[in-house]
Amino acid sequence: MNWIAVDWGTSNLRAWAMGPDGPVAHGESPKGMGKLAPHEFEAALLELVEPWLDGKTLVLACGMVGARQGWREATYRAVPCTPTDALGLTRVETTDPRLDVRIAPGLSQSRPADVMRGEETQLAGALALHPAFDGVFCLPGTHSKWAQVSAGEVTSFQTFMTGELFALLSTQSVLRHSMAEGWDDAAFDEGLSEALSRPDRIAARLFSLRAEGLLHALPGASAKARLSGLLIGIELAGAKPYWLGQQVKLIGAEKLSASYARALATQGLKADTLDATACTLAGLASLRLKLEK
Amino acid sequence: MNWIAVDWGTSNLRAWAMGPDGPVAHGESPKGMGKLAPHEFEAALLELVEPWLDGKTLVLACGMVGARQGWREATYRAVPCTPTDALGLTRVETTDPRLDVRIAPGLSQSRPADVMRGEETQLAGALALHPAFDGVFCLPGTHSKWAQVSAGEVTSFQTFMTGELFALLSTQSVLRHSMAEGWDDAAFDEGLSEALSRPDRIAARLFSLRAEGLLHALPGASAKARLSGLLIGIELAGAKPYWLGQQVKLIGAEKLSASYARALATQGLKADTLDATACTLAGLASLRLKLEK
Repeated sequence: MNWIAVDWGTSNLRAWAMGPDGPVAHGESPKGMGKLAPHEFEAALLELVEPWLDGKTLVLACGMVGARQGWREATYRAVPCTPTDALGLTRVETTDPRLDVRIAPGLSQSRPADVMRGEETQLAGALALHPAFDGVFCLPGTHSKWAQVSAGEVTSFQTFMTGELFALLSTQSVLRHSMAEGWDDAAFDEGLSEALSRPDRIAARLFSLRAEGLLHALPGASAKARLSGLLIGIELAGAKPYWLGQQVKLIGAEKLSASYARALATQGLKADTLDATACTLAGLASLRLKLEK
Repeated sequence: MNWIAVDWGTSNLRAWAMGPDGPVAHGESPKGMGKLAPHEFEAALLELVEPWLDGKTLVLACGMVGARQGWREATYRAVPCTPTDALGLTRVETTDPRLDVRIAPGLSQSRPADVMRGEETQLAGALALHPAFDGVFCLPGTHSKWAQVSAGEVTSFQTFMTGELFALLSTQSVLRHSMAEGWDDAAFDEGLSEALSRPDRIAARLFSLRAEGLLHALPGASAKARLSGLLIGIELAGAKPYWLGQQVKLIGAEKLSASYARALATQGLKADTLDATACTLAGLASLRLKLEK
């Protein structure tokens, strides 16, 4: 029997028709959770998945679709716990009787307060792909996550606003005047090293990107790479208890993960990278297997 | 003879008709440098000051009006130097023959690279009001400045993006969902102490404001005050070489300066506050006196 895997974030909706051997069709739309009122989710989903429906069809969804402002709130599960659990799924009432929609809940941590939605499914997928792994996963992104995993459970995690800070600073702040397309590895390494060695100076080092542009004609591509280095550096400084002396696996997009791998390598750490989409699909697939039991 | 004082920033234009004993009239408009093309500056100025013109009239302006994207670039003067100097003024050609417009240049510092525009005039005014002062001025704002002053010269300074980070994070980032009007002194102090003691954790502490709201119903006013505390705390951590064991005077708006004074008091420092507008006017007035010599 076929089913449908859905990754529904704030900005985008992605869906896969799943056959016995994995995905057989794929669709995506910009109708992310952030753009939809609760009554608009079903239509947005049908736009993508209707051709795949075959009688009553299971739709397993993860991500911000389960947030308070989403389609239907899927209450967080508190760590320590496995990343996902069939019992935690939240069913959604739909008008179309062919849809059997269930949303995977996120994870919460009481102290220090933290939450994730969507990454728990990637963690479940990473563990399905590497069942014996004990160590730390780093999931770079808008809100980067570091998660300690032991014996199949997430024992603790921490979120850093790195990606969102980069987007705001490079496109909305005064620094946008100093940024350009392109990249500069040496500038990235400099920013990284500055932030790791002197995290207290971060707010001054940010402004200096502007001043370096005005006074010393720092190229825009170098400014952008150094900004990325500063922000990943301050993240690594704060996440040190997670990576120091640990096995680390990255889960993320190729380019961003490469920057994190480069950053970790300067600290003597070799981290390999798992593809984020492959982990999401493996996570939803493992959840579907649990559901059948 | 009367003259006109102008503070022309990115967002606003403020002008004062100056008599022998200080300002006799005041006007302001939202036509800041950021909204004007070079050919639009003269008309924006005339809208405010035309009623005050009396034959050829001196207009002394400071701020972003002298930036590369402003009316006419006023090249930076490099520290160490006095905050302002009549020789550094840049004259602007105008269509209206009654206008004699001169723009005060900002200050630059080569290493670490830094720039200011407008604050140099406040520093000149503060020194005009307190000629014997040797020590440190802190100018809180969008881009907070710390300046070391000795024997009437600015010897070094450093800029922190504190105010801009606060604006972006509280209104443009995911944290905006957790913010509300109001204030909470205890939450401010907590944020301050967290950032001062563990600056490396700043990117994680920022996200925890969102998680505390979702999991522990942290009130929006407390989240906003804690965000302010975190950002002023990371600034104080980075500015420590400027304030530790120093005489510090604040130059700024009343409410924001009160937060900085409170923050410095937790570190055992008593800083008094000078009004920013009074300093700007005193700075432009002292520049006009130098011009007459």
